[in-house]
Amino acid sequence: MRKVAIGQAGGPTAVLNATLSGCVESIKGSCEITFIESGYEGLVEENFIPGDPAMLNWVIANRNIPGACLRSGRYTFDEQAIQRAVQNLKKHQIDTLVFLGGNGTMEALFKVKQESKHQGYDLQVIGLPKTVDNDLGATDHAPGFASAAKYIAQTTRDMSRDLYSMKNFEQIRVLETMGRNAGWLAAASGILKKHKEEGPHFVAIPEKPLDRDQLLVSVQDAVHAHGYAIIVVSEGVQWKKGAQIELNQVNGRSILGGISKQVGDFLSQQLNVTTRAELLGMNQRSAASSVSEVDAYEAYQVGCIGGHFIKEGYDECMVSIERKPADYYTINIKPVKLENVIAEEERLMPISFIDNREAYYQWLSPLLGGVHSYPPITQRRVEYSEF
Amino acid sequence: MRKVAIGQAGGPTAVLNATLSGCVESIKGSCEITFIESGYEGLVEENFIPGDPAMLNWVIANRNIPGACLRSGRYTFDEQAIQRAVQNLKKHQIDTLVFLGGNGTMEALFKVKQESKHQGYDLQVIGLPKTVDNDLGATDHAPGFASAAKYIAQTTRDMSRDLYSMKNFEQIRVLETMGRNAGWLAAASGILKKHKEEGPHFVAIPEKPLDRDQLLVSVQDAVHAHGYAIIVVSEGVQWKKGAQIELNQVNGRSILGGISKQVGDFLSQQLNVTTRAELLGMNQRSAASSVSEVDAYEAYQVGCIGGHFIKEGYDECMVSIERKPADYYTINIKPVKLENVIAEEERLMPISFIDNREAYYQWLSPLLGGVHSYPPITQRRVEYSEF
Repeated sequence: MRKVAIGQAGGPTAVLNATLSGCVESIKGSCEITFIESGYEGLVEENFIPGDPAMLNWVIANRNIPGACLRSGRYTFDEQAIQRAVQNLKKHQIDTLVFLGGNGTMEALFKVKQESKHQGYDLQVIGLPKTVDNDLGATDHAPGFASAAKYIAQTTRDMSRDLYSMKNFEQIRVLETMGRNAGWLAAASGILKKHKEEGPHFVAIPEKPLDRDQLLVSVQDAVHAHGYAIIVVSEGVQWKKGAQIELNQVNGRSILGGISKQVGDFLSQQLNVTTRAELLGMNQRSAASSVSEVDAYEAYQVGCIGGHFIKEGYDECMVSIERKPADYYTINIKPVKLENVIAEEERLMPISFIDNREAYYQWLSPLLGGVHSYPPITQRRVEYSEF
Repeated sequence: MRKVAIGQAGGPTAVLNATLSGCVESIKGSCEITFIESGYEGLVEENFIPGDPAMLNWVIANRNIPGACLRSGRYTFDEQAIQRAVQNLKKHQIDTLVFLGGNGTMEALFKVKQESKHQGYDLQVIGLPKTVDNDLGATDHAPGFASAAKYIAQTTRDMSRDLYSMKNFEQIRVLETMGRNAGWLAAASGILKKHKEEGPHFVAIPEKPLDRDQLLVSVQDAVHAHGYAIIVVSEGVQWKKGAQIELNQVNGRSILGGISKQVGDFLSQQLNVTTRAELLGMNQRSAASSVSEVDAYEAYQVGCIGGHFIKEGYDECMVSIERKPADYYTINIKPVKLENVIAEEERLMPISFIDNREAYYQWLSPLLGGVHSYPPITQRRVEYSEF
């Protein structure tokens, strides 16, 4: 019976345990399962947990629960650590190593495979994709992203109503989303906007330096037209250099907190309005109440099919989601070489989506599952003018 | 036909529009409705919107949408403003003034009534209750609170899984909830905790000054036992004076941000661990995805029955929710005198709930609707030790 070791790595998501469950359910009975606690650190430190029936049931009970039930964490995986990892796998006679994770995880998996080859040890490695930022390459998207995107889209939709209600008191709210280098999440904030009065009125993504003048004009226009503005900024956004207005001069004091605080302070000073910066925080990746049912289902499917690939003997592969060309949304789950995943590095938003937000929304929409837009904020104005 | 003017005041909630819808649906046809835009400011500035069929339909379409669709806002309601308010009501021949809001709103409504008496103008006033903090008196609870409490309970439950997953990297998360003077919301954070490994591991409410030593011991214990700790603090929490450790001395720099940031900085310094402070923000009062169905239903009911009270001629009253003594959850919606609401001032958590959290959870549980706890975070440890 094939011995399979499974671990979770990197930042958790709301559906990471669904992928783990799917994999376990598809191989239990036909493979002997060992779990690795706390990601690559556990692999190196030999924190192995036997997959007895109680443990398997406990993992499966975590299917719809956010986080990483095996624990993940961050870990520096150097040469020495890789050697120890392979020694531990040998010692436990592991035939197959499965890791759930993103870019860093896939790269680490590839290194373990190379080291095992070097040591003449026959090890099968399979990666199961996970992301929040959607920066994982060689796949149309990866589980975890859609639920975070849904959380942000809903939050932006609801915050618009909240701030609009209070616009005599507070005019600007700056929402800071996850996304160090990629703007997929921040850009998702506008997908439920159906009327110009609703937020977001300006979205800043890391792929484009933030131009103070452009920000100012957009926000001024929104405040003038609607009395308030919702701005969404990705945590990784950088100010454009050489712009006329330097933030430190504007504030006369040092800047603290994330980019949302900087943007809020800048706008307060320039427009003499009340602003509030809000970091959307870890709820983006962990709120069970905003999980996309499509994301949860795909996460589970990716795990199940990963299990199938293990049994079929696929190696040095990541399970990937391919979107098929069709009028409706349909996917194919297939193996891609880890080398190809690594070669793509961090996947940023393509120019076609940056320049055409509607095209992006069309791509994103089926991933979000059941979400809806609201009636117009100011419908009554329109009706009123008809009397 | 009786002419009824309706406005929304104070901070919006996720179910404030449900109450408005309920009221409108129960009186439309039998009363002539006028809407007041942006709360008491609109009353004073004469921002009246005729309740024609299109406007009524638009208001009803907002039933399940967060915020205040008529706009609310904050406004200083001085003597002169009250006189202008009554003049405007006279001018529009308003027979009944209805306001949705909390403590401040009920007090303002009472003042308008007194001024109308003074001017010899026969005006019926009815208040419809709303709160996020649950600090409104003369009612068991008020619409808006339960959805915010549910948001906080779910967030704490989910953040526990998230942080537990990452405890090799980050050990302490401090969540800051709404609640300037009352701890109902912060205390709700523990209702879904079923195992000691789960957060919250310490909860600070404004009713009790925060003792540094007690905080430190509790968090040290949690970190020692579970490797991480979730702390929940109400935004209005104050440090206990005279404690040995002064925060400014500890940090050697000035303190910024809310109490969560202070608590996080304090714990970082004392315990040499990584902390993150998270303000849960406006999602607490506006996230549609976390609305309690019980809260939404009661909010609507309160509006409907408010409409009934208008037609029955009740005056100087707020619609109140009375919990009936029974083995199951059942309520009676009845009028209470505005004077009694005002006399109770801000309702804090009673000592019985502060000292007996289980009693509080029993009181709170039926208000939250469908929420659930998770399987143990560390079940596998228990199972593992049996081999």
